Amino acid sequence: MPIVSVGKRNLEFLLYEVFDVLSLTHHKYYEDNDREMFDMVLRTSLDIAQELFLPILKEMDENPPRLVGGKVKVHPAVRTIMKEMGQGGWIGATYPKELGGSQLPLMIDTACTFVFSAANYSASVFPLLSKGAAGLIIAYGDQDLIATYVPRLLSGEWQGTMALTEPQAGSSLSDIATMAEPTPKGYYKLQGRKVFISAADHDGVENVVHLMLAKIEGAPVGVKGISLFVVPQKRIDDDGSLVPNDVSTTEIYHKLGYRGSPIVGLSLGEADDCRGYLVGKPHEGLRYMFQMMNESRLGVGAGAAAIASSAYYAALEYAKERLQGRPLTNKNPALPQVPIIQHADVKRMLLFQRAIVEGSLSLLMQCSQYADLAKVLGGKEKEKYRSLLDILIPVAKSYPSEMGVLSVSQSLQCFGGYGYCDDFSVEQHYRDMRIHPIHEGTTGIQALDLLGRKVVIHDGLAFGLYLAQMGEAIEAAQEIGELKRYALQLRDALESLQRATSHLLSLAQSQGPERSMADATLYLEFFGIVTIAWQWLLQGIAAQKALKNGRTAADANFYRGKLCTLRYFFGYELPKTLGLSFTLLNNDGLTVEIDEKTFVE
Amino acid sequence: MPIVSVGKRNLEFLLYEVFDVLSLTHHKYYEDNDREMFDMVLRTSLDIAQELFLPILKEMDENPPRLVGGKVKVHPAVRTIMKEMGQGGWIGATYPKELGGSQLPLMIDTACTFVFSAANYSASVFPLLSKGAAGLIIAYGDQDLIATYVPRLLSGEWQGTMALTEPQAGSSLSDIATMAEPTPKGYYKLQGRKVFISAADHDGVENVVHLMLAKIEGAPVGVKGISLFVVPQKRIDDDGSLVPNDVSTTEIYHKLGYRGSPIVGLSLGEADDCRGYLVGKPHEGLRYMFQMMNESRLGVGAGAAAIASSAYYAALEYAKERLQGRPLTNKNPALPQVPIIQHADVKRMLLFQRAIVEGSLSLLMQCSQYADLAKVLGGKEKEKYRSLLDILIPVAKSYPSEMGVLSVSQSLQCFGGYGYCDDFSVEQHYRDMRIHPIHEGTTGIQALDLLGRKVVIHDGLAFGLYLAQMGEAIEAAQEIGELKRYALQLRDALESLQRATSHLLSLAQSQGPERSMADATLYLEFFGIVTIAWQWLLQGIAAQKALKNGRTAADANFYRGKLCTLRYFFGYELPKTLGLSFTLLNNDGLTVEIDEKTFVE
Repeated sequence: MPIVSVGKRNLEFLLYEVFDVLSLTHHKYYEDNDREMFDMVLRTSLDIAQELFLPILKEMDENPPRLVGGKVKVHPAVRTIMKEMGQGGWIGATYPKELGGSQLPLMIDTACTFVFSAANYSASVFPLLSKGAAGLIIAYGDQDLIATYVPRLLSGEWQGTMALTEPQAGSSLSDIATMAEPTPKGYYKLQGRKVFISAADHDGVENVVHLMLAKIEGAPVGVKGISLFVVPQKRIDDDGSLVPNDVSTTEIYHKLGYRGSPIVGLSLGEADDCRGYLVGKPHEGLRYMFQMMNESRLGVGAGAAAIASSAYYAALEYAKERLQGRPLTNKNPALPQVPIIQHADVKRMLLFQRAIVEGSLSLLMQCSQYADLAKVLGGKEKEKYRSLLDILIPVAKSYPSEMGVLSVSQSLQCFGGYGYCDDFSVEQHYRDMRIHPIHEGTTGIQALDLLGRKVVIHDGLAFGLYLAQMGEAIEAAQEIGELKRYALQLRDALESLQRATSHLLSLAQSQGPERSMADATLYLEFFGIVTIAWQWLLQGIAAQKALKNGRTAADANFYRGKLCTLRYFFGYELPKTLGLSFTLLNNDGLTVEIDEKTFVE
Repeated sequence: MPIVSVGKRNLEFLLYEVFDVLSLTHHKYYEDNDREMFDMVLRTSLDIAQELFLPILKEMDENPPRLVGGKVKVHPAVRTIMKEMGQGGWIGATYPKELGGSQLPLMIDTACTFVFSAANYSASVFPLLSKGAAGLIIAYGDQDLIATYVPRLLSGEWQGTMALTEPQAGSSLSDIATMAEPTPKGYYKLQGRKVFISAADHDGVENVVHLMLAKIEGAPVGVKGISLFVVPQKRIDDDGSLVPNDVSTTEIYHKLGYRGSPIVGLSLGEADDCRGYLVGKPHEGLRYMFQMMNESRLGVGAGAAAIASSAYYAALEYAKERLQGRPLTNKNPALPQVPIIQHADVKRMLLFQRAIVEGSLSLLMQCSQYADLAKVLGGKEKEKYRSLLDILIPVAKSYPSEMGVLSVSQSLQCFGGYGYCDDFSVEQHYRDMRIHPIHEGTTGIQALDLLGRKVVIHDGLAFGLYLAQMGEAIEAAQEIGELKRYALQLRDALESLQRATSHLLSLAQSQGPERSMADATLYLEFFGIVTIAWQWLLQGIAAQKALKNGRTAADANFYRGKLCTLRYFFGYELPKTLGLSFTLLNNDGLTVEIDEKTFVE
């Protein structure tokens, strides 16, 4: 059995050295925590990943869920996992103790999500969805809903889902057509179809609870008329027993990867007896859902970084063992072959993967820290960290997803022909990874969210705060001799990002939204590279500090590796912004103007 | 049944308008051909692709070959396809008539390869391998070998293979350990193991003929001691019957994609009775194999471009039909949704795919034209076109492969969640495509070949010829008002490529090969983008010319689409060279210096 590889040392570095998670324990909400507690949580997550998640990675891929007699059957280990995740307190880790949670910081929770997802992404999704659903009910539901659903979701007895997508409403949520008819008894009767709903039906739990978007009859058209409902698969009858709630599973999708997790289509109210319970106020559903979605999008980013991380460590191990070729300085075929990690091109490929994985994870920790602070601070400070989180979410979702696809592809390449075969897990990682640029809002949608909303709202408040955070890091790095050139390079890139931003915003004024938003995806890519460069600079500052303090040889190697990867990022990744900047500044309107008829077969 | 989509209009444009394949018919070897013949060949290839290849695309993926009782069983249609490819003259299309060929230009053959591969890549590989094996025997084998093997390979009765790789000798061919012991009877006795051999055993043919690299006892170490042998699976006994030749199939690989084609491991001479027949002279095997490999690498490029093409047309069709969202200028949810092709971001994604697919195919046609000319011309002219072909081969193999992976990924993205499911063929294309950066020499190997050999051999002769070809195109485009700015942009990029080349070559002098070759892969990428920009300029010149001559509306749309894609390439792809140039010029030796020990878990 392979050992779960997640870079434990790196997790500790990010938690304790870069982002100082212990400083959170000065806040009341987190005050019962300490280093010992965090270490124990992390260690236990690794044990569970090793014992429960990793052993069934391939089995779950090879035996995907099946729809049998209208009911989805999943791998039997899902039941064990849900139980363990519930009883061990993993689903409710960040929630208040009075609701059965543990009041852990999201930073620690993100680290654990990363660990579980690295071991087996499909398996990790079940508890994550329950956590999200419970969070929505806690935030916006009334006491009845909380009392009925939250304990069973957090215990792992019931599965939570997010039920948004419909056949005609994927990226365009304003087109949701599922209808909710009020009844005198308080509940609503739902009718409609949902598609691509993860974990929406399976035999690893007693019941499934959908957090579902629907429209109340007579609601305004578009997104302003969407409400949020709790729609259980089985509802609680007057006598307390569970009875079917007229939710049927109509299809199961056969997927490229991420095959251990059932994604299904649902039909609601075929017998006119599907009951839903309104969460919060009517027509406010999308706003509620989006607040929750921040955390889901961080979860997708963490899942993407985790899969890329697994593939990276597998490639690293292989590169150290696989003998092939000789140094270019001495190709004498009579000499023995060398491990491929000795070839510069292979080291470059490994540095690329490491830069993506650890850069992404750093950003996810940064976002988690902002969320943790926003949760416990008040007033302007709360608004500051919430704004920073808001503007970074599209990057934290899309950068690990898009770059993770490339990173896993490089991992696969390190294996040569063996990487293309199922002897190693990397081909599965390659398939599992590809969902991430799609679900929870495609990369194109993230780009519109960043450039069309996050950068401009409140007169650019969030963007200003983002620039200030970057400025602080640049200033700190300038004080450290070894980092000065990176600080200056990032300052230049940041200026270039600001120029591109101003240019696009002025285009919006002069030529309208289509022109200004046409290259939003490239803008997101640009923004992402600069953001990850910032994260590498922060890691570089922490690594330099640690090296100055004197370390053991093994530890010194870790920190030197960090500085090498920083150097890689600034040498190979950050320069990509030169081309992006050129394209953004010189866009001549091609993609808006071009006539569809010129696309001929 | 879906219709095979290959861009027939585009193939005709490249063949007749950009590269003027008819001008080849002035040469004696091609003199029996004319437009009517070429059109007929192309039309027939489309019919066969539609009738034989496309219907089993998914079946072959879902029912991969199995190793049963030491024998590989493939999809039964493989037998029909081999028969048809043989009897129809497709395997021998480019070979001399006296050997049973048709003396068609490689340009036409490449177009047909593209058509077959676009319909079903796995199925297309069987005849391609036989063509390659026959070509090697024709070029270097004696009359006996030619008479015994070529007719049966060209007829499709027997399968040809290229058997190079061994467990310890993948990229490093100098480490081949299969041994060949001479016998007094003239044949050799072989012993060893081969892995990752395509189509090396299957029940769709009567026999398999391996073109195999091995070392004769006492040969020099390394690549200078490698010889080439014909090693049949069954040899011809004295009485003319086929008897087993002690070649056994030891394993079959379970692959991510490209699953219809059997890739197997072979064991040779377990009973000390495996006979091989030397091709040409001893120790010259690698040189022979590499000459042939030029054509195989073009074949991989064509296969990659073909898969990307299929995925592109599928995405285009979907984008025209799928309704989602509304124009940014009028998002009123009461209005109907629009086809997603109306969104600028989707048009950008489609233009990206088109730019990669048609740019790659153009380069493949360019290379085929050079090969066709080198075949029939003599002296300096022959050397010129062979040199141009040599320097472009690493690009023609790697650009369609690397960029094709990204292109298919964008195709998949156009489908959203549906692209991740097997309802559409694009998820299969995504898997099938990923082999291309690996087989027939990985991208890293192509990069070493380009920068370490092709750019420098004969004092940079090939590179000089390449620059001259580019210069001619730039000059011609400068004369056309609409194209002048692209001509100037390409001139700048070319100067930048020359600067990077000089820099790397001077690094080789001052710091040795490790430093100069460390970023060979980035250099290859840079070279590739500039090369494809040149191909788009050539296509732009032809399109402008056609538009000036007055066209029907449908045709005008085709040419305007070409010019839009040219504009896309110069606006979005060529600027990527800015970052590559920066990185190449500023490389500080990181990937050579970095200590492996800094890669810690």
